[in-house]
Amino acid sequence: MTTTSPADSPAGAPATIASIAAELGVSVPTVSKVLNGRADVAADTRARVEGALQKHQYRRRTQATGPRSAPLIDLVFHELDSAWSIEIIKGVRRTAGDLGIGTVLSELGGRHRPQQSWLDGVLARRPLGVLLVLSRLEAAQQHQLESRSIPYVVLDTDGEPQADVPTVGSNNWMGGLSATRHLLELGHRRVAVISGPADVLCSRARIDGFRSAHDELGVGVDPSLVRYGDFEVEGGYRHGRELLDRPDRPTAIFAGSDMQALGVLRAARELGIDVPRELSVVGYDDLPLAAWVGPALTTVHQPLVEMAATATRMLVDLSRGVPPKPPRIELQTQLVVRESTTAPPAV
Amino acid sequence: MTTTSPADSPAGAPATIASIAAELGVSVPTVSKVLNGRADVAADTRARVEGALQKHQYRRRTQATGPRSAPLIDLVFHELDSAWSIEIIKGVRRTAGDLGIGTVLSELGGRHRPQQSWLDGVLARRPLGVLLVLSRLEAAQQHQLESRSIPYVVLDTDGEPQADVPTVGSNNWMGGLSATRHLLELGHRRVAVISGPADVLCSRARIDGFRSAHDELGVGVDPSLVRYGDFEVEGGYRHGRELLDRPDRPTAIFAGSDMQALGVLRAARELGIDVPRELSVVGYDDLPLAAWVGPALTTVHQPLVEMAATATRMLVDLSRGVPPKPPRIELQTQLVVRESTTAPPAV
Repeated sequence: MTTTSPADSPAGAPATIASIAAELGVSVPTVSKVLNGRADVAADTRARVEGALQKHQYRRRTQATGPRSAPLIDLVFHELDSAWSIEIIKGVRRTAGDLGIGTVLSELGGRHRPQQSWLDGVLARRPLGVLLVLSRLEAAQQHQLESRSIPYVVLDTDGEPQADVPTVGSNNWMGGLSATRHLLELGHRRVAVISGPADVLCSRARIDGFRSAHDELGVGVDPSLVRYGDFEVEGGYRHGRELLDRPDRPTAIFAGSDMQALGVLRAARELGIDVPRELSVVGYDDLPLAAWVGPALTTVHQPLVEMAATATRMLVDLSRGVPPKPPRIELQTQLVVRESTTAPPAV
Repeated sequence: MTTTSPADSPAGAPATIASIAAELGVSVPTVSKVLNGRADVAADTRARVEGALQKHQYRRRTQATGPRSAPLIDLVFHELDSAWSIEIIKGVRRTAGDLGIGTVLSELGGRHRPQQSWLDGVLARRPLGVLLVLSRLEAAQQHQLESRSIPYVVLDTDGEPQADVPTVGSNNWMGGLSATRHLLELGHRRVAVISGPADVLCSRARIDGFRSAHDELGVGVDPSLVRYGDFEVEGGYRHGRELLDRPDRPTAIFAGSDMQALGVLRAARELGIDVPRELSVVGYDDLPLAAWVGPALTTVHQPLVEMAATATRMLVDLSRGVPPKPPRIELQTQLVVRESTTAPPAV
């Protein structure tokens, strides 16, 4: 283990494609194919090459990579849905477009972890960088991007953020706090919350904000009014029906997204419950349509376009070798009061 | 003019990069740079090269083009807005993704004609093909794509369709007819229509359908109830306010999009006009949210996802040298009746 072979020691001369090929007894084109995500390499050979790339902390020289006359950013959503995604796309497109950078759009079909086939496409395309929305990479996938010198940034997080991954998010805890405080200050004492999935960090942060607002005003939380769901309209409708069918129904519901709030509005309408007179509803995101539905939604503004623009600028900086300072950015959320909230009905 | 030089005669041997360079007295790399949309060629040289490419009907051999290990489709919107765009993106993404093709997304900032800078990016990227949404190319831009053997398909049309351009649309005239027929059959006699811009073909087709339904049932059209606008929610709101502020206000409004219908619903709400009891509203597109707003929208279903998928398949076929049969496809629209329409109030 004290050999001076460059391929053996990360502390020695940096590994090259040639040194890795020699060490593994494979051809230089084979290593090159693996670097470019080509499918025509046997799986075990590929695994050995990836292992060596990682062991030697191989880094492709970026000057040598890809068609820089047509630079690309890879933007990947766990799922393309509704107007939420459009706000993100707008922010990325405008920032990247101004810099003459094309945007490749992918979706993972609802998975929060990309499949290898998607990553192979990225390796073959050699983008300037990868922007992951509500998704994260496995450690092995991170290594694959790192060895190709392809930087990546995560927009929002769906789990414990990794210290070494540049991230742009927004303050979900503060969003939960300000929405709930608004309802409690209006006089509501039975406030329900429908958040996103329990294993998604932003859902938990919002619910913690919801609890803190209750603590602040000395109001107890009824655990049966705390719901985890998804961010979809159907989920809002289903939870809304369950909550509003109860004899001790809440007088206010704080939803996890504007789409979910639309589902709650529909549940209320079906049950003949007037919003806001008999039920206050708060959304989340402040999508353009929040101002147009009836009643117009009181909601927590999440600066999605600006978040996406910030993440894109971070990615471009990283591709030029400029580390983002700070590496983790959180933009502020803000409550926007419209028509869907008012004081609770007198008992 | 009877020289046998291959560069001079389309009827002779096909022009090559070398023959065009020789004819113009420029270097081979210069012609190559122009083919690849590179900016580092003087404007007049570039124009001369483009002229020669067009004169000789130069066609790049597709086998030689681009990084086919990472194939791309260019999807370009005149404007990215609302959930409408997401439906198109879904259809393209799923179809292209299944074929291992990446999608590059662009928007033209509201322009219906792409700028040259966008086209240069396309030429440099060398995609399998270009899919234009609600936009069209200038003749010179068409020639540029043709000389690089990059096929293109137009989704919907914003003007007189060109016979030689493969197009996927939907039957707008039938959409206008069925929506209006529905309202007239419910007993409405003062029906307003808010369509898209007058210079967009689909707007005119829908209004012609609107007129035909009136003719069919022997009901006269009040020209002051026929409006051209845009497809945005604000436009729907503005026209809605104007129409509903009139003493002889219509009892039904047929909007050009679901977003526009949302604007009409808001105008009605502000004026205390109940939908559907006092006013029937029909949307267009049948976006997912149409079923969720209150009242749920009666609307004309436009198969956006399927239209996008069809256009993508046409593009992939074209890139393989398979001409689409037929070259112009129109998918059917269908009326979906929900809560926003009913018989007019008794006078």
